[in-house]
Amino acid sequence: MSLAHFHHTNILDIDQFSREDIQFILKYAQVLSQKERGQLSHLLEGRILASLFFESSTRTRLSFETAMIRLGGKVISTVGFQFSSISKGESLSDTMKMVEAYADLAVIRHPVEGSSRIASAAVNIPVINAGDGTGQHPTQALLDVYTIFIEKGCIDGLQIAFVGDLKYGRTIHSLVKLLCHYNVKMIFVAPIDISLPESYRKELKEQNIQFEETEDLKAIWDCDLAYVTRIQQERFADQSQYELLKNVYSVDRSFLLASRKETLIMHPLPRLNELNTDVDDLPHAAYFRMAGYGVTIRMTLLLLCLNIDIESEI
Amino acid sequence: MSLAHFHHTNILDIDQFSREDIQFILKYAQVLSQKERGQLSHLLEGRILASLFFESSTRTRLSFETAMIRLGGKVISTVGFQFSSISKGESLSDTMKMVEAYADLAVIRHPVEGSSRIASAAVNIPVINAGDGTGQHPTQALLDVYTIFIEKGCIDGLQIAFVGDLKYGRTIHSLVKLLCHYNVKMIFVAPIDISLPESYRKELKEQNIQFEETEDLKAIWDCDLAYVTRIQQERFADQSQYELLKNVYSVDRSFLLASRKETLIMHPLPRLNELNTDVDDLPHAAYFRMAGYGVTIRMTLLLLCLNIDIESEI
Amino acid sequence: MSLAHFHHTNILDIDQFSREDIQFILKYAQVLSQKERGQLSHLLEGRILASLFFESSTRTRLSFETAMIRLGGKVISTVGFQFSSISKGESLSDTMKMVEAYADLAVIRHPVEGSSRIASAAVNIPVINAGDGTGQHPTQALLDVYTIFIEKGCIDGLQIAFVGDLKYGRTIHSLVKLLCHYNVKMIFVAPIDISLPESYRKELKEQNIQFEETEDLKAIWDCDLAYVTRIQQERFADQSQYELLKNVYSVDRSFLLASRKETLIMHPLPRLNELNTDVDDLPHAAYFRMAGYGVTIRMTLLLLCLNIDIESEI
Repeated sequence: MSLAHFHHTNILDIDQFSREDIQFILKYAQVLSQKERGQLSHLLEGRILASLFFESSTRTRLSFETAMIRLGGKVISTVGFQFSSISKGESLSDTMKMVEAYADLAVIRHPVEGSSRIASAAVNIPVINAGDGTGQHPTQALLDVYTIFIEKGCIDGLQIAFVGDLKYGRTIHSLVKLLCHYNVKMIFVAPIDISLPESYRKELKEQNIQFEETEDLKAIWDCDLAYVTRIQQERFADQSQYELLKNVYSVDRSFLLASRKETLIMHPLPRLNELNTDVDDLPHAAYFRMAGYGVTIRMTLLLLCLNIDIESEI
Repeated sequence: MSLAHFHHTNILDIDQFSREDIQFILKYAQVLSQKERGQLSHLLEGRILASLFFESSTRTRLSFETAMIRLGGKVISTVGFQFSSISKGESLSDTMKMVEAYADLAVIRHPVEGSSRIASAAVNIPVINAGDGTGQHPTQALLDVYTIFIEKGCIDGLQIAFVGDLKYGRTIHSLVKLLCHYNVKMIFVAPIDISLPESYRKELKEQNIQFEETEDLKAIWDCDLAYVTRIQQERFADQSQYELLKNVYSVDRSFLLASRKETLIMHPLPRLNELNTDVDDLPHAAYFRMAGYGVTIRMTLLLLCLNIDIESEI
Repeated sequence: MSLAHFHHTNILDIDQFSREDIQFILKYAQVLSQKERGQLSHLLEGRILASLFFESSTRTRLSFETAMIRLGGKVISTVGFQFSSISKGESLSDTMKMVEAYADLAVIRHPVEGSSRIASAAVNIPVINAGDGTGQHPTQALLDVYTIFIEKGCIDGLQIAFVGDLKYGRTIHSLVKLLCHYNVKMIFVAPIDISLPESYRKELKEQNIQFEETEDLKAIWDCDLAYVTRIQQERFADQSQYELLKNVYSVDRSFLLASRKETLIMHPLPRLNELNTDVDDLPHAAYFRMAGYGVTIRMTLLLLCLNIDIESEI
């Protein structure tokens, strides 16, 4: 896994990656996943990760912290409301300059879009964006692509459905962008009120990506996989609209067993009614395995940002 | 310490243990306590404990985390209100399936009775109940028994008093159940309004345990040890009743020095007026030593759940 | 670095230190800072620090936790509102007796003045005061002196300005006291309403320290360094007074470039308008480097409290 062709020291948004970059990350992660735990447990010995969650995201925080300590590194951690200096009016840049003196790299989650870029610009240590506001969440998109790569063995040639809140769903927006580097067909399944924004439709056309839009959930029966998402209550100014839409789709066992293909079901979790628990023990259910893939992808990104070549190190 | 006869991979409630199990735990803990720190510091190297406190309990959380890191393990930790996915409606089972991808075992504290059993059923990693609602707190009961075992050298034959809130006191209920495996005499000291529930009285009779009930604190003068507890304000719907009862007993230095026996005083802490600080430097005071016994018992349970035989490993 | 002449196992306030103590700490820190990271990473292996922040102070907490883990130690950590036993009425002494069973030393931050002394009196492990209310913050004062020592090469003979809130500023009060051990001239720059309290003025006279007071910020042009501080909104009962004073001074690039000397600018951070970001890339700006000095000083204090002689250990 020569690092000669990978030049990113920060992971800020998915637009920074070429197809070659993504392929490199996927293969690096795959090699990593095949190592014994003991082979990895000293790679980041003596390094410190600052886990800076200016807003709470337990799933993502624990994933990064697990990744760091599996590699032998240490973590200093803080969650939003604990940032006492922020409450006294400190700028993010100033906070980051303090962090730079403590840690070898930083993961940042922040409620305001663009924060991770500001954070990164302030310091000389690598910064990884763990989600900033309505902006990007690149490590989630990379773990989604890695899930497809491992579960399906390839990405090119797949027919992929996206189900649920396509208007506000940050996760879907990032994944769609990343998949534009591949030869896939996309099926967007959503009620008209929360369908894909026009800007994404335009980009797909420019990139010559084949896609269809429908309100009919049965469209996923023809797909290799369906990426199902929660209707996010917190995004609706009008709660009565949320009530109308929240249960519009529900993927369950009998619906899936009627599928022509063994449609793989992915979900970024947490889930509500859109994905029934009676799916959990079907082979279709990839969503719990995604937590493990997430740790692998985050281990990969920590190592790449610190320029660690696992082949020569192990 | 052959593990051939110990078959528990989860610690969910005290009813799961036979007398043989308890004896095994006590002796394993005693052997562990006699080792040098350096002999233990690599036993759980590379293992990760998920410390999941859905409600705050600093004493118990720090005890488990200390136990884990003394054994060379690592901890990922989260406290209640940080569980962002829970606030979005995620089920405990789904949360646990994420945790399973991150950690080798989990400790769970939860406000709802039965939660630890639900958590355990969702995953294939060991789960330890660190208190669930008005339900059980088995590691507290085990550390209480371990305290008696170490401080008194044996358990059979002792006369043991329980003082304070016998109606709502989860700690006392668990300890009473555990001691039913031993040949002890129990003295229950409480005002009638917060005396032992009828179900426990019935069980004691069925198990042929000798016991007495009284409102007179002087009864502890005849006991080998007294387990004193706080009247828990948060359990009273009627605060005026709490005000009447909160100072009904106060164990202090002069009262203890009048005792016929050197009655050992235990207390799960925190304490209020029921146990005066002027007792602290008497030999009677075992309650501060209990924090150390607690770490030993939790180290023991972490090792047993992961099936580590200390004799062969060291 | 023989420890024969250093006899402090607790760091509670700056009055405990003689000039010889301070010089010893500064030199120990300097030696430590010249070591490779790998030489230090096992010095506190197997030791556990209890990081007890009864009020939030992210900067100080992360600094101590970084210091501990760089030395190979482990941290158990808790922040204010998580102290469930405190909310049930537990005394600080009782909490500390629990901590003593878990950790090898403790760092305590507490909103009430004198708390660290109470904490220390309750236990036999070293206790370090990380700020208690309007009381002392000795590790901040030591890192300030260490900054001067490293940046200027010496302390005796310097002319040092203090700017901003000299009435309520705990940081400044502690640093002034510490600098009384040196042959320095102090210039106090503050509006009359928040000028240095009379008690400090009296002490400076008794100690024969040369000092001047002025409202004119231009006084710092003649100084080797200026210690600038934030006007602390939270200290003002009358918010209209805060509004009048908050922007009374603003150190910026053009003001500094007009200085006769290259006045070094220090600031405990966080900063607001009193220190403009256009100063950040001037050589004058020492304030971001202070975060690194802080980690070194805290590593030093952890080692000294545990009586570790780095020369013989490395």
